[in-house]
Amino acid sequence: MPVNLSALQPQDLLPVPGLRIGVTMAGIRKANRRDLVVFALDEGAAVAGVFTSNRFCAAPVQLCREHLGAAAAGGAGIRALLVNTGNANAGTGADGLARARRSCAALGALLGVAPQQVLPFSTGVIMETLPVERIEAGLPAALAALGGANWFEAAHGIMTTDTVPKGASRQVAIGGRTVTVTGISKGAGMIRPDMATMLGFVATDAVIAPSLLQPLLQRAADASFNRITIDGDMSTNDSFVLVATQRAGHDPITALDSAEGRALAQAVEAVAVQLAQAIVRDGEGATKFITVHVQGGRDEAECRRAAYAVAHSPLVKTAFFASDPNLGRILAAVGYAGIGDLDQGLIDLFLDDVHVVRAGGRHPDYREEDGQRVMKGSEITVRVHLHRGDAEALVWTCDLSHDYVSINADYRS
Amino acid sequence: MPVNLSALQPQDLLPVPGLRIGVTMAGIRKANRRDLVVFALDEGAAVAGVFTSNRFCAAPVQLCREHLGAAAAGGAGIRALLVNTGNANAGTGADGLARARRSCAALGALLGVAPQQVLPFSTGVIMETLPVERIEAGLPAALAALGGANWFEAAHGIMTTDTVPKGASRQVAIGGRTVTVTGISKGAGMIRPDMATMLGFVATDAVIAPSLLQPLLQRAADASFNRITIDGDMSTNDSFVLVATQRAGHDPITALDSAEGRALAQAVEAVAVQLAQAIVRDGEGATKFITVHVQGGRDEAECRRAAYAVAHSPLVKTAFFASDPNLGRILAAVGYAGIGDLDQGLIDLFLDDVHVVRAGGRHPDYREEDGQRVMKGSEITVRVHLHRGDAEALVWTCDLSHDYVSINADYRS
Repeated sequence: MPVNLSALQPQDLLPVPGLRIGVTMAGIRKANRRDLVVFALDEGAAVAGVFTSNRFCAAPVQLCREHLGAAAAGGAGIRALLVNTGNANAGTGADGLARARRSCAALGALLGVAPQQVLPFSTGVIMETLPVERIEAGLPAALAALGGANWFEAAHGIMTTDTVPKGASRQVAIGGRTVTVTGISKGAGMIRPDMATMLGFVATDAVIAPSLLQPLLQRAADASFNRITIDGDMSTNDSFVLVATQRAGHDPITALDSAEGRALAQAVEAVAVQLAQAIVRDGEGATKFITVHVQGGRDEAECRRAAYAVAHSPLVKTAFFASDPNLGRILAAVGYAGIGDLDQGLIDLFLDDVHVVRAGGRHPDYREEDGQRVMKGSEITVRVHLHRGDAEALVWTCDLSHDYVSINADYRS
Repeated sequence: MPVNLSALQPQDLLPVPGLRIGVTMAGIRKANRRDLVVFALDEGAAVAGVFTSNRFCAAPVQLCREHLGAAAAGGAGIRALLVNTGNANAGTGADGLARARRSCAALGALLGVAPQQVLPFSTGVIMETLPVERIEAGLPAALAALGGANWFEAAHGIMTTDTVPKGASRQVAIGGRTVTVTGISKGAGMIRPDMATMLGFVATDAVIAPSLLQPLLQRAADASFNRITIDGDMSTNDSFVLVATQRAGHDPITALDSAEGRALAQAVEAVAVQLAQAIVRDGEGATKFITVHVQGGRDEAECRRAAYAVAHSPLVKTAFFASDPNLGRILAAVGYAGIGDLDQGLIDLFLDDVHVVRAGGRHPDYREEDGQRVMKGSEITVRVHLHRGDAEALVWTCDLSHDYVSINADYRS
């Protein structure tokens, strides 16, 4: 059961003119499961992507970087995204790269575009051979299904251990036109910053200078997917892609700090945050949604280190699962976050509105039952104040439950 | 059930002349539980210690550093170690420090030595007030019990979530005399390198220049406690202490690279390795003992990073729990270990004798049943070869099971 995540409805996801989606069952790993998704982009769309920093990145990630690089260098624009679940095509060496190329070529041929105009995405089990012939066999059905209203189908089609589909839409007025931003994402384990292990696809019909798309995407990622963690494991396949179909008909946005640029950035960020939080809310075995807010650091980097140390600590996460205000575990995590000259005598800790630790020791007014009350909730904010500067950082995570172990111990069976 | 750890017997732990031990039940957290241990050292003993690098270190760790510093600066020597379980006296601010001082003063007064000649150690729940009056009340009983043969009692007296007591002895001939090295340790969660969350006490009657004790201890720690991890959480209280009572009657050891120095160092390291491995074998919920061996790195630091990334990965650890050869998770962990220019196309992966990955992809001869066979064992070696240099590193860890979650979700109840 996802934590406070209302069920996605088909009408929640608005079509984006200039982009069509086809979903099919290709039997990649299991039969009777939607596992192949094609996004077809009309000519003229701009595309940007951010990807896992894992050095053991999957073949499709390597190809995405290559194809986006070719497009940015003046080559033909990206015309399709090809997503499969059931197989990550990671840890597959040269053969995996060849199979990913073959899948791009197959879709390119059917669409009448070059293989380099296709971006491939794979998610699922690592280190198994991609059954590219099943992808090829499934493509005609996916293309036959192409339509602008298939976002909801696509949200289902990219799921792996997710228990629910994840998607969001926003509309915003720009230059007298209504601009749509729609996105979908999948998690739900192997989630960690830079990037979370996930796929995220967001599209807008906004008209924007292509060179602005990458910084717009990076800002949105920093405020969303780069703030979430479930188990600290970083995937080989994380990808977050932003498509601008340029079809909304307003004057082109030529600066991100213009009123129009800010309006679009805000809408994209709002969608990205909703998609990222949905991944945590549906985190493997999650029963609580936890916000870790570290304040008073010298710089954002050290605040992030402290926030992630808390968010990754198995002891902290099991305490949340148990609703046990064993809050010293949070202090211990802050202490090993690698802030070399941290003065423990300055630290404050709050659990929602409850002041737990003052100046490094238990607050004299703190009562266990107050901590217990907060811990029993399903949405909890941990706030740590380091009192050594003005920087801060925010991270979203979930607890560590029996179900996390069950899901990951049984994943392949 | 600890993994392949034979039950400790009283006769396994040999007395160390010049050191006596008293254990009692002080009711610190629970009644009818051995929770207070005193080590009394004859005059002339040399003592060295290594402690947690957690910035949020506990009050007793702060005092240990202070008292060892005073002794090293020419003050009176350490004459006693005072260990309590049930309360870590961490996250307790100035009040915790005062209470730790008071416990040292109480034991010092009973022994007729200064408070600075006592080293305090606490383990248990964080952020609760140390009931120092119960320690004071328990001390006379502990001192009445003092005896050289009480190591086995002490191994029980320092346990927290440990399911079994942990100890080891070695004897070695030095200068025509038989020198004894005996030690005990406790884990079993919140274990991580530099240091593991644990207490370790090792004593020898060897005669050695006091200035050599700290480097001797550091080498032993690097080869033992700094190689283990259970959950990646670093304690506020980790302490590893080496006592040399100087009573064996041989000529003093004045160089670690002498034959006598090497013989002693080898014995101390052997005891420390046995104590450290015992902590992993009794790791919270552990069902398997896993050795992670990373070879072919440019330097030891990057090999350690890769080994710890594998050893800390919840996905890797749950796969071991499930005996599921989902080995791509190991590659993914190596990939995010922070080796910026790692070439995934060079990596080899072995599971015991099974060659799983060659040059970054699945080995053509690898069969799932071979991986499965290894994964079903209770002692498994993961060997990763980076093929970029000659350095290597070794880490010991365990799997992540349902019981880990149960133990840590229910710890305080």
